[in-house]
Amino acid sequence: MLKQEIDTPAVLVNLEQLEANIRGMQKRMNELGVNLRPHIKAHKVPEIARMQLDAGAVGITVAKLGEAEVFAENGVNDIFVAYEIVGARKLQRLLELARKVQISVGVDSIEVAQPLSEAFASAGMRCEVIIEVETGLGRCGVLPGEELLELAFQVDKLPGLKLEGIFTHEALHHLRSPEEVKKVAEGVGHVMVGAAEMLRKEGFEAEVVSVGATPARTYTCVKGVTENRPGTYVFNDRAQIGLGAATSDQCALTVLATVISRPALDRAIIDCGRKILTSDRDWFLEDFGEVVGRPDLVLERLQEEHGFIRLKEPGPDPKVGDLLEVVPNHTCVVMNQVDRVYVLKGDKVEGTWTVAARGKSR
Amino acid sequence: MLKQEIDTPAVLVNLEQLEANIRGMQKRMNELGVNLRPHIKAHKVPEIARMQLDAGAVGITVAKLGEAEVFAENGVNDIFVAYEIVGARKLQRLLELARKVQISVGVDSIEVAQPLSEAFASAGMRCEVIIEVETGLGRCGVLPGEELLELAFQVDKLPGLKLEGIFTHEALHHLRSPEEVKKVAEGVGHVMVGAAEMLRKEGFEAEVVSVGATPARTYTCVKGVTENRPGTYVFNDRAQIGLGAATSDQCALTVLATVISRPALDRAIIDCGRKILTSDRDWFLEDFGEVVGRPDLVLERLQEEHGFIRLKEPGPDPKVGDLLEVVPNHTCVVMNQVDRVYVLKGDKVEGTWTVAARGKSR
Repeated sequence: MLKQEIDTPAVLVNLEQLEANIRGMQKRMNELGVNLRPHIKAHKVPEIARMQLDAGAVGITVAKLGEAEVFAENGVNDIFVAYEIVGARKLQRLLELARKVQISVGVDSIEVAQPLSEAFASAGMRCEVIIEVETGLGRCGVLPGEELLELAFQVDKLPGLKLEGIFTHEALHHLRSPEEVKKVAEGVGHVMVGAAEMLRKEGFEAEVVSVGATPARTYTCVKGVTENRPGTYVFNDRAQIGLGAATSDQCALTVLATVISRPALDRAIIDCGRKILTSDRDWFLEDFGEVVGRPDLVLERLQEEHGFIRLKEPGPDPKVGDLLEVVPNHTCVVMNQVDRVYVLKGDKVEGTWTVAARGKSR
Repeated sequence: MLKQEIDTPAVLVNLEQLEANIRGMQKRMNELGVNLRPHIKAHKVPEIARMQLDAGAVGITVAKLGEAEVFAENGVNDIFVAYEIVGARKLQRLLELARKVQISVGVDSIEVAQPLSEAFASAGMRCEVIIEVETGLGRCGVLPGEELLELAFQVDKLPGLKLEGIFTHEALHHLRSPEEVKKVAEGVGHVMVGAAEMLRKEGFEAEVVSVGATPARTYTCVKGVTENRPGTYVFNDRAQIGLGAATSDQCALTVLATVISRPALDRAIIDCGRKILTSDRDWFLEDFGEVVGRPDLVLERLQEEHGFIRLKEPGPDPKVGDLLEVVPNHTCVVMNQVDRVYVLKGDKVEGTWTVAARGKSR
């Protein structure tokens, strides 16, 4: 089948660009001597995780247990759940998973660590935990000084837990330039290395010093950082382009759409809206996607199943029935909308992949 | 099972409020003598469509063929596809569907009508078409004067098509007050009735004069309008509240979330982000959901799997592990994130429903 024969809207993956993105990131990590543990929230596709592992990744990162379960079922046996696991049901699921594969999880409070300890200790098992450190995002995590030290001592005393180190997710999307991204990412790297040193002085091993965010490129990976967990680099998107982490050519995911209406010379409507592209839009983006090869078209508004395109130069082209390809603002949420993606080499459809962990937000 | 035992994040449906919303809308339509043909894009659940039909709806509205296929398989036999069907693959699917159930579709150009005509005529069948009229949304549709008349004459000449009337979707979300909503919705109603009159004077029947948008309440249903296609009224959400179409009490859908981190006295993090609630936010909304019964909590930011809550009054409550319920900004997109919803009477889980048409954007 050829691209032109695919029913729309459809998510397309450019296989060669995907492979190049995976190889490129692995090569940079190898050069730096930093382990790559890619975050699969960006794709949710076991076949892509397999490509990442084959290229040299040490394991994968997930946000949710449900994602971990899907990837474990699909043969991935080293998984870091970069999330605080809370609640009796989830602890039971985590125990079951830990019996099958190598699992580590995030903690950022004694309230999270205590029940985790009880669950694993009473099962006669040990859970590897990595303390989440807050480095500017304002999300989860302890501050890298006294708060971190206090939690490390608390966790160390709990049975059933093994403290492996620390992790953070760099806050970069609010920054105003690639230069700012570089500066902040390097700063986060140094903070993490310093925090690990502090732990080691108190007798902790702090084997893992983990960072991760695609816009950071390799900047966070200063000497002493042991692991990087980027996600979006497999596809790239307009947010990454805007933050200086990718070029349009490096985008491996597009959405194929059909023009269904030309109600006016300056307006075209496509069959793809928020239920594929979502409303995600970083502060530096004014529209909802880049129409490939058509700088004259602006995807300026979305409704649930409609995309509104403004023609900078009013005219009859594109026509009803024409196909357009859109680079999304944020691929991670796009992948969570669809059950299947088309894998292409050039215009030829090589096959489809199931987005096996779609919707696994638990 | 009780609500408190549900693993999070989870979408909850308050069954009694859902039933009340369905009954209430049907009652208002009955009083006005207007057919109700609810848009199922808001829920995508066959069980809810069945409740709507049992209450008196004449059929359903869908945006996409994929939705029509799912609801036809689930016993709905009168479906209006309020969308322009473009492309050979979709025309084949439409033909197959039209062999099984009563189908009508939207058209807004000869470019859409011509291939539709050819497909149905060559199959020896006839497709009911309804012309989409543009009444301010700037989406699809012909203008209600000469453009409409010209397309009606063109469609009338084409074999395999039967012109049933006209439809529109009122543009209301940009308006500044419930009073403006009323004024604009009434105006749209009068435009549609006038357009139908114009068609009748030229000899067309224009049996169907169809409007639809929940924020319009019943205002668009002026004398002469024959059909209303609201969707969101089944659940309601913060957008509807903001537009004056519902109260908080009338919201039948919430998202159950767990507090996973209390990194600071003024901040709580829940396990529910954009991959459930999405980034949808009308201009009049400053945050991403209303935390039920907790006006002291502001859900001010979302990432993919995290919700950031600001405490207006810093303190230790809510605690890690506490459950919170969130009324979303826009329920239609929330239903497109999850495979299953929990149906509750009070705190008791009566069962689950599959969101059978989730992701059916084709």
